[in-house]
Amino acid sequence: MENYEKKWTNLWLKYEKRADAGNFCFCEMVCVQGFDEHNTIISNALKEFAKGIKGMLGITPAVVTGIPAKGIWIAKVADAIVPNEGFHLKTEAERIVMEASDENGVLYGIFYLLRQIAMEKSLAGLNIKERPAIKNRMLNHWDNLDGSVERGYSGHSFYFDNNKILISERTVDYARFIASIGINGVVINNVNVKDAATYLITPTYFNEVRQLKEIFAGYGVKLFLSLNFAAPLELGGPDSADPFDEDVISWWRGQIALVYEALPDLGGFLVKADSEGRPGPFTYGRTQADGANMLARLLDVHGGMLIWRCFVYNCTQDWRDRKTDRARAGYDNFIQSDGDYHPNVILQIKNGPMDFQIREPVSPLIGGLKKTNQMLEVQIAQEYTGQQIDVCYLIPMFKEVLDFKYCGSSEKIFDVIKNIGFVAVTNTGDDENWTGNDLAAANLYGFGRLAWSVSLSAEEIAEEWIRQTLSCDEEVIAVVKKILLSSRDTFEKYTCPLGIGWMVTPHYHYGPSVDGYEYSQWGTYHRADHLGIGVDRTDKGTGYTGQYQEPHKSIYNNIETCPEELLLFFHYVPYKYILKSGKTLIQHIYDTHFEGVMEVEEMIKAWNRIEAKLPADVFAVVTGRFEQQLNNAKEWRDHINSYFYRKSGIADEKGRKFY
Amino acid sequence: MENYEKKWTNLWLKYEKRADAGNFCFCEMVCVQGFDEHNTIISNALKEFAKGIKGMLGITPAVVTGIPAKGIWIAKVADAIVPNEGFHLKTEAERIVMEASDENGVLYGIFYLLRQIAMEKSLAGLNIKERPAIKNRMLNHWDNLDGSVERGYSGHSFYFDNNKILISERTVDYARFIASIGINGVVINNVNVKDAATYLITPTYFNEVRQLKEIFAGYGVKLFLSLNFAAPLELGGPDSADPFDEDVISWWRGQIALVYEALPDLGGFLVKADSEGRPGPFTYGRTQADGANMLARLLDVHGGMLIWRCFVYNCTQDWRDRKTDRARAGYDNFIQSDGDYHPNVILQIKNGPMDFQIREPVSPLIGGLKKTNQMLEVQIAQEYTGQQIDVCYLIPMFKEVLDFKYCGSSEKIFDVIKNIGFVAVTNTGDDENWTGNDLAAANLYGFGRLAWSVSLSAEEIAEEWIRQTLSCDEEVIAVVKKILLSSRDTFEKYTCPLGIGWMVTPHYHYGPSVDGYEYSQWGTYHRADHLGIGVDRTDKGTGYTGQYQEPHKSIYNNIETCPEELLLFFHYVPYKYILKSGKTLIQHIYDTHFEGVMEVEEMIKAWNRIEAKLPADVFAVVTGRFEQQLNNAKEWRDHINSYFYRKSGIADEKGRKFY
Repeated sequence: MENYEKKWTNLWLKYEKRADAGNFCFCEMVCVQGFDEHNTIISNALKEFAKGIKGMLGITPAVVTGIPAKGIWIAKVADAIVPNEGFHLKTEAERIVMEASDENGVLYGIFYLLRQIAMEKSLAGLNIKERPAIKNRMLNHWDNLDGSVERGYSGHSFYFDNNKILISERTVDYARFIASIGINGVVINNVNVKDAATYLITPTYFNEVRQLKEIFAGYGVKLFLSLNFAAPLELGGPDSADPFDEDVISWWRGQIALVYEALPDLGGFLVKADSEGRPGPFTYGRTQADGANMLARLLDVHGGMLIWRCFVYNCTQDWRDRKTDRARAGYDNFIQSDGDYHPNVILQIKNGPMDFQIREPVSPLIGGLKKTNQMLEVQIAQEYTGQQIDVCYLIPMFKEVLDFKYCGSSEKIFDVIKNIGFVAVTNTGDDENWTGNDLAAANLYGFGRLAWSVSLSAEEIAEEWIRQTLSCDEEVIAVVKKILLSSRDTFEKYTCPLGIGWMVTPHYHYGPSVDGYEYSQWGTYHRADHLGIGVDRTDKGTGYTGQYQEPHKSIYNNIETCPEELLLFFHYVPYKYILKSGKTLIQHIYDTHFEGVMEVEEMIKAWNRIEAKLPADVFAVVTGRFEQQLNNAKEWRDHINSYFYRKSGIADEKGRKFY
Repeated sequence: MENYEKKWTNLWLKYEKRADAGNFCFCEMVCVQGFDEHNTIISNALKEFAKGIKGMLGITPAVVTGIPAKGIWIAKVADAIVPNEGFHLKTEAERIVMEASDENGVLYGIFYLLRQIAMEKSLAGLNIKERPAIKNRMLNHWDNLDGSVERGYSGHSFYFDNNKILISERTVDYARFIASIGINGVVINNVNVKDAATYLITPTYFNEVRQLKEIFAGYGVKLFLSLNFAAPLELGGPDSADPFDEDVISWWRGQIALVYEALPDLGGFLVKADSEGRPGPFTYGRTQADGANMLARLLDVHGGMLIWRCFVYNCTQDWRDRKTDRARAGYDNFIQSDGDYHPNVILQIKNGPMDFQIREPVSPLIGGLKKTNQMLEVQIAQEYTGQQIDVCYLIPMFKEVLDFKYCGSSEKIFDVIKNIGFVAVTNTGDDENWTGNDLAAANLYGFGRLAWSVSLSAEEIAEEWIRQTLSCDEEVIAVVKKILLSSRDTFEKYTCPLGIGWMVTPHYHYGPSVDGYEYSQWGTYHRADHLGIGVDRTDKGTGYTGQYQEPHKSIYNNIETCPEELLLFFHYVPYKYILKSGKTLIQHIYDTHFEGVMEVEEMIKAWNRIEAKLPADVFAVVTGRFEQQLNNAKEWRDHINSYFYRKSGIADEKGRKFY
């Protein structure tokens, strides 16, 4: 372990003194049967239990060999009874019986118990059968080897600095934190693989990557690497990356063998190809499937997965062109190849067809593909949703996506991805509190918990996080829960109305700029004129609605049935159009922008009321962020309202001030 | 001289074979009387003459001691007869008599003769008395010590790289080039003095700065340094930069003494204080005069000048505020201190009140100050005027400024600054052709020539440059002259209309973004709504017009008398307002944007016609730039026209396509 000078908090694993809620008796002894106590995961689980119990209840559990009358009895069972990663917990008088079929199940069971204690919930009467809702529960880090983090809002990378890999106690703590919420895979480097990062698959970095991999493995987390599709050219291989070129294939075969020799059990690779300037198979006239399959076949030999991102679109579009539609691109680029992928290929698809806006419809590609492994990608790094300055609890949005009945039957997006995976572009960095705004950690916590236990409500998850992180005080829980649960709607109110998105400062993506992406090459338009605003994506426009299965195809295509929160995503709408509320569109824009600011002001008032009950450091940081958020909200309110007032000439019905 | 690997051209000092135009006889011999032949400037002048004559006429002039019957006779005279820097030339049969009172005059005389020969003009019958129109003729380099150039569009710095100073034959050639057009001062480092640049006034760099200084001195050019007002804090001096703090004054006294001991005859310092985040006297509650005078007094002892920029304004303005006006800032910040400056302080004032837009009124500060040394600053680095991709010959603009009768009498801006100085933020870098676009070199050439000889027309200067640089062919002269002379109007047509400025991509300043600076902190607004556009700077608006002396105060204040090219700078104007042309404002915007693109297309056609007569490398580079310019012009046309069409709802009378 190298020296690491920065401090860091314990996030939700604070293990501070807790009222025992009658749990004392269960925690005095622990007995493990059928598992090797020296297995790293088991040993880490027992250490975690001891640490947590010591902190929260003030006792040190004894590890015993006989089945305890009072305590935890961990027993190994067949995976036919409890599937891998799952665990059963049953309270029998003063004993809790935990059954699991693998070490990961034990680890998750232990974290379950610690969570209940941290939340001051009783362990009496437990009778639960937990198993993960989704198979692969992953985090993507967009960390660069120079230590920067693309779209990172929490300081620098804690993996890399100055083209070196950092390994310290912080790395171990990070593995503990994400294991505690059920994460079982991490991609440690940015999908935009450039410069030194290309060398992660070479001996230059094998030693340190192996150490990282082992730290994570000790907590049931597989390590993955993002790959540069043009690696052969950059690492002195053949002068091509054509997936049909025998020299290229042969080079990759050798390179991947080298990687797996040094890094057995590496999870596999993540590839962003043919996207935003990244190289890919299109360069050589090949399909995405051609590119993915070439690598996947070579990985298969070693048991690796090949995760291929579907974020492929024309990023040099002519803004004058109203037929080309970036929203269509994912579907258009991938639907033809449905069924063509090697079994160990997973397509990683963003939740919306554009790019992590505050409101988008669910991508028609997910579930549109019928014969292809699909993994859902969301972003808890708040690139477009407040950058961890503004509070924006995203779990409600993720639940909407997972619950979306994409084909009219009761089948949901969740059903499409549950056997494959769910991944978040993560929001952590080397800030002391990990996530810039302490409240942003609720998104990391919530993502993991949701991926594990999809039926949890956003509110339940918020309460879990608050109890463990801030306080079990009922007022704190009520206030912070309200802040979190209203935060997404509030953010939406003061930013981009009704699904239009993109009215952000180019490149930075924080703060308003209505026309910032309007006359640009990025395929991101609002098409506002003096009469109305919105993109016609119906069959009379770009035809994007036709990518949906019924009933959504018809619902979205018709302005009358289109959900209003997505109105401007699908339709060009006159400012004087009357919404279901009875308000005109323009008045809705004005009103929501005033409301958004008022709601931020209310959040701040409520937050200030509970100051005395909050950890002082958290209060100070979050208060500072709230001040910035309020400024941001006012800037958005005045910019957006003034823009549309100037453009439409329509006055506010309430006579409020525009500029 | 260190190794320097880049190539560079000889700009207008090509010294290629020329028809002798009867000049042969004058160039066989040269005799210098009264000057020390070993003086560096004299020796450089003679070397230059030999080099030029050898190249252009194929002969090597003999340096003789007796007065030649055929040749050049250089004689020293009193400065009462020929002032310093000036020269008289008189042709007497086959002899040319050159009189000068100092070495610089000889150097300029020699360059005059070489220029005539390069232009294939006869030296017969000369009878001229040349002296510089303006005393200090300076260039400001915005070069950073890391090798970058702020707002540089011609590669990297040729002064600095990686915090080292570069000295090579290129440096010497650069000194020759600028001396040949009469430049007598250079500031080598960026006015935004940060990091390593702060150390230019310390022994770390003395050795190399001295070498540079001596190279320039050999060509009559004084070297200046930009200064960090906060240097005491950054160089380990007192923990303050308060100009009234005795410790600060004492620290500067010592530091300046150290500088002048190492660098005798250093020209002095340039300071950008209290501007765009730079430190300054305002930080300590002192006036600009307090800050400037403190340094000036200390410099005076050593004969140095203190040049103080007047680009002081609030760069964190609230865009909602329609009373604060950046255009007012220079005047408001400096007019009160008129007469308070130490005699060796020069205020350096940008030509317009905003920042180097394609069209601005002349700053009311110049000539508004009555008792203060004023130097006019222009920018030949084309930050807002095409970035040396688009051709934009700026000499016509500079002549408008110099000819501006600021107070109604016949006195012009030229008269205000002629005894002080004229300075350009320069446009050179380490590109092979020095200025990115070869045609951009006409601005460097033209600036120097205009500063020397203010009565030259923009057309005469263009022709001089074309003859020396490209060809003496009449078709080439006609075509390139037309391109250069029309280029500023063309650029204006396809970019920002009628003086409004600022519709550029934020930060980059190339390409259109109508609202890019509209809702920003920079004080740069167009205030367009669905009915009209423009900033009311009259006595009913920001009151900026009141800073002018009559008759301009009234002329600008009244929409009927305001020059139309500045209409939107001074007035908010409805789109349906009828201009003197009989067109509405909006139709004028539409028409000029279509015209601008057509004019670029015509330029390119004309340029292509003369391909065979042009140096192949110049043709290739400029042709590449023209392609980019045409794309840029089309982007501007469509963006601006579509923006205003969408906003106003007013169709083009000619039914052309908007988006």
